[in-house]
Amino acid sequence: MHAIGIDIGGTKIAGAVVDELGGIVRSDRVPTPAGDAASLESAVVEMIEGLRADEEIGAVGVAAAGFIDAAQSTVYYAPNIDWRNEPFREKLEARVGGTVVVDNDANAAGWAEFRFGAGRLVSDMVMLTIGTGVGGAIVAGDRLFRGGFGAGAELGHLRVVPGGLACGCGQRGCLEQYGSGRALLRMAGEIADAGGIGQALARARAEQGELDGALVGGLIAAGDPGAVAALRQLGHWLGEAAASLSAVLDPQRFVFGGGVAIAGELLLEPIREAYLEHLPARGYHPEPDFVVAELQNDAGVVGAADLARVWVAEHA
Amino acid sequence: MHAIGIDIGGTKIAGAVVDELGGIVRSDRVPTPAGDAASLESAVVEMIEGLRADEEIGAVGVAAAGFIDAAQSTVYYAPNIDWRNEPFREKLEARVGGTVVVDNDANAAGWAEFRFGAGRLVSDMVMLTIGTGVGGAIVAGDRLFRGGFGAGAELGHLRVVPGGLACGCGQRGCLEQYGSGRALLRMAGEIADAGGIGQALARARAEQGELDGALVGGLIAAGDPGAVAALRQLGHWLGEAAASLSAVLDPQRFVFGGGVAIAGELLLEPIREAYLEHLPARGYHPEPDFVVAELQNDAGVVGAADLARVWVAEHA
Repeated sequence: MHAIGIDIGGTKIAGAVVDELGGIVRSDRVPTPAGDAASLESAVVEMIEGLRADEEIGAVGVAAAGFIDAAQSTVYYAPNIDWRNEPFREKLEARVGGTVVVDNDANAAGWAEFRFGAGRLVSDMVMLTIGTGVGGAIVAGDRLFRGGFGAGAELGHLRVVPGGLACGCGQRGCLEQYGSGRALLRMAGEIADAGGIGQALARARAEQGELDGALVGGLIAAGDPGAVAALRQLGHWLGEAAASLSAVLDPQRFVFGGGVAIAGELLLEPIREAYLEHLPARGYHPEPDFVVAELQNDAGVVGAADLARVWVAEHA
Repeated sequence: MHAIGIDIGGTKIAGAVVDELGGIVRSDRVPTPAGDAASLESAVVEMIEGLRADEEIGAVGVAAAGFIDAAQSTVYYAPNIDWRNEPFREKLEARVGGTVVVDNDANAAGWAEFRFGAGRLVSDMVMLTIGTGVGGAIVAGDRLFRGGFGAGAELGHLRVVPGGLACGCGQRGCLEQYGSGRALLRMAGEIADAGGIGQALARARAEQGELDGALVGGLIAAGDPGAVAALRQLGHWLGEAAASLSAVLDPQRFVFGGGVAIAGELLLEPIREAYLEHLPARGYHPEPDFVVAELQNDAGVVGAADLARVWVAEHA
């Protein structure tokens, strides 16, 4: 059965018709309407109607950043949209008919990797999506772990430094401030300021005005020592956090996704080093492996569609 | 169906025949044989044989501290016993017949609270057992969460202070060093050293030679400001850790067990305060409640017996 997956991002809405093997049959993409919840809803409805023309569709899954209740129905809170306790599922079902489920975007991406990507050979995995922030997903015993209220797996808000850097969640020292794409740019900027191996970063920043992901990513790919050092700092924090997460969740595999994961082994190596250095009861504790995500940009829509299919199968 | 639960502790082995409602039909207790794995095994076999005389027993569950594989069979490592990759289930089944399963002791205690105690009205709970160390248990979607290798829910080894106090697991800054009974005694000792409200603690220590749990517990119960301050410090660390755990696990309820939990509201109040102060996205994140355990000393045997029953039901 084909399902539709919709991924509502901060800048764009992506949608696709997805087959049972995670293949994309047809896709669509529009800019996210700014700020207004009603325009957003209409854009999603239009995309669904466009995608399902000439297609037999079993269900629709929608992924968005934020806290979504365990019934995959109500958005408690979304950082990019003016939603508070929004009954998004009910509204969409009323407008498009059929079954619609709503999930957290990082959960959808993690589920896609588990079903069709880097996690498909394990039963228990943790995924960290390293984008502007840090998203998390947990699969335990072949099931997506949502938490008691649906707001679990917010792994970017594990505290790694008491009293550390301020975070958008109102706390200090969250992993997101040390392991995200934004943190990578900060670390690269600090290395540029410090001179030494940071000279290429400093030059590039002077030419371009400021460091961005494309610039730092390009320098990493070119093997620039300053940019690689920033990536290693990032990896170290992620590895330390993974060690604490192993004590709690004990996954068989950690999967790293998002733009930064393109660095592959350059990112995974410092993660593994820091993980082993910080693993409680090392030598006695079984060790997971560390891999990068396989689906990248499609993970959100593929996972959202498949979670909708799972919902239908479990409620048939 | 009745089941037997056995709880192997550092100083004693407790056993019981447990009915389907968690009631103890018959019980037994012997000192733990020192150090020797063969004597320990024989003591457990003898206890099982004694308990099942005149009883129809469906299965036997054994709980012990340590890492136990996800198949409830092999003890990877136990801190108190000379076991390494011990096929304890197989050995016991060969000697006593029938179905035997092995589980982590904190998991067994948590499961007992979930089924028959403080967690029985929720589907997702986290239990922290505050004994000499800190044990953890996670129930998610009405199931015990074991992790991919069986070594999950070691919540005492969540890192709360980078570079903090040394822990028996080889790391620094684990929750166990800040939220355990041993940590409470250290905090009480520091308050005694500092004078001021620590005078009663200092006097008691001088009379008795050193502070122990009974002494500090007695002073807490009597409302001594120094002892209560130590308990509040402990509760504060537990509340901070619970905030990080909510970002990961998002339980509906936190249950606190072990000897220190006898303090009840005196312990829960600083936990709740610190939790709310450190909760990421407070105001948007659904809030769990905080309660103390109900079963206390019987939780290990009751949970071990019920986990054996669950195993039999799932493998029937």
